[in-house]
Amino acid sequence: MRIGVFGTGTVGSTIGGRLVELGHEVRMGSRTAHNDAATTWAAAAGELASNGTFAEAAAFGELLVNATVGAGSVEAIGTADPADLEGKVLLDISNPLDFSAGFPPTLSIKDTDSLAETIQRTFPGLRVVKSLNTMTADVMVHPSRLGAAHDVFLSGDDADAKAAVAELLRGFAWPQSDIVDLGDLSTARGVEMYLPLWLRITGAIGTPIFNIKVVR
Amino acid sequence: MRIGVFGTGTVGSTIGGRLVELGHEVRMGSRTAHNDAATTWAAAAGELASNGTFAEAAAFGELLVNATVGAGSVEAIGTADPADLEGKVLLDISNPLDFSAGFPPTLSIKDTDSLAETIQRTFPGLRVVKSLNTMTADVMVHPSRLGAAHDVFLSGDDADAKAAVAELLRGFAWPQSDIVDLGDLSTARGVEMYLPLWLRITGAIGTPIFNIKVVR
Repeated sequence: MRIGVFGTGTVGSTIGGRLVELGHEVRMGSRTAHNDAATTWAAAAGELASNGTFAEAAAFGELLVNATVGAGSVEAIGTADPADLEGKVLLDISNPLDFSAGFPPTLSIKDTDSLAETIQRTFPGLRVVKSLNTMTADVMVHPSRLGAAHDVFLSGDDADAKAAVAELLRGFAWPQSDIVDLGDLSTARGVEMYLPLWLRITGAIGTPIFNIKVVR
Repeated sequence: MRIGVFGTGTVGSTIGGRLVELGHEVRMGSRTAHNDAATTWAAAAGELASNGTFAEAAAFGELLVNATVGAGSVEAIGTADPADLEGKVLLDISNPLDFSAGFPPTLSIKDTDSLAETIQRTFPGLRVVKSLNTMTADVMVHPSRLGAAHDVFLSGDDADAKAAVAELLRGFAWPQSDIVDLGDLSTARGVEMYLPLWLRITGAIGTPIFNIKVVR
């Protein structure tokens, strides 16, 4: 599949790299066409990888991944031609973390809204699915790296779009039994508001290489 | 130990009942001295159980438990004689959930503050420890009811107070290895902001009888 990944940070390059390993064609988008991080990533990731602007990544991808910093997500997606967003699934991994006052960060959107819902409202042509934002990048694409089963959440208003993202997750070797469909996109508030706890657990155990399991 | 429990709801009666089973003397406090729920609870729980006002529960307890509705916690504790709070450990289980606009609830305190910190600031004589607020009452006091190990979090500024609460948790049969000390009381923001996700997981799996495990 052709996939456009917005964002050149750890999440974008890790997800993009894994998608290329799995045989997908990936175009990484950034603010400028020749962003250093994206160019370096594309050169290292092999011939299925390319890079360009956010708009070029949007035009390229049959499925889109938002891995930008939360504060810049709407602006980044907004540089795409609306026709290149129409009907496409957007896997939204970003978090609305605001580090402007230091640690711990606050959430710029929360409680009665979420970043995922904001993106969906702003770009109604997209079919937004929130997932993977509750863990560090390496765990997203290598779930078996942890010592026991753990869970990934799905939030979205479109069942077919959630099924497409679940298929992508199974491609990363997530067992179907560890994919928890929380419901409509308003449930993204929950997974975004979990981030402050995620950060504190990271501090307490001394590593971001963990995830949570729902135990019944 | 003599324990004062603020609140007559499911959490207060479940925690209070379990503490009595474990041999503690428990006084349940409520707004009025002869609250029906508290009187019924005390009669059923046996001779180690009693009830009275919040102020009487505060005077009675060597250790205090806040199991009131979050919106009423400060007012409830504020009816105690300040001398009856001085130096005492308060295990705060409450959550600042606001259901006034229906479901999903919002959080009345969040992000840059928490209910636990608000209580600590308002009653500086207390030594506030946040714990147990991330699960349903039955799981709090019967952790082995779930099918695998799962975690409980601790937040607080006073190490001795956290040790006292950890001892209480071990009394409920929490293994020490499943008690995660997150750090100072500001980490309570994380566990309180987890509640929206907790509610959505409950909806997705159809039961509140679950908890999360940190998997490494």
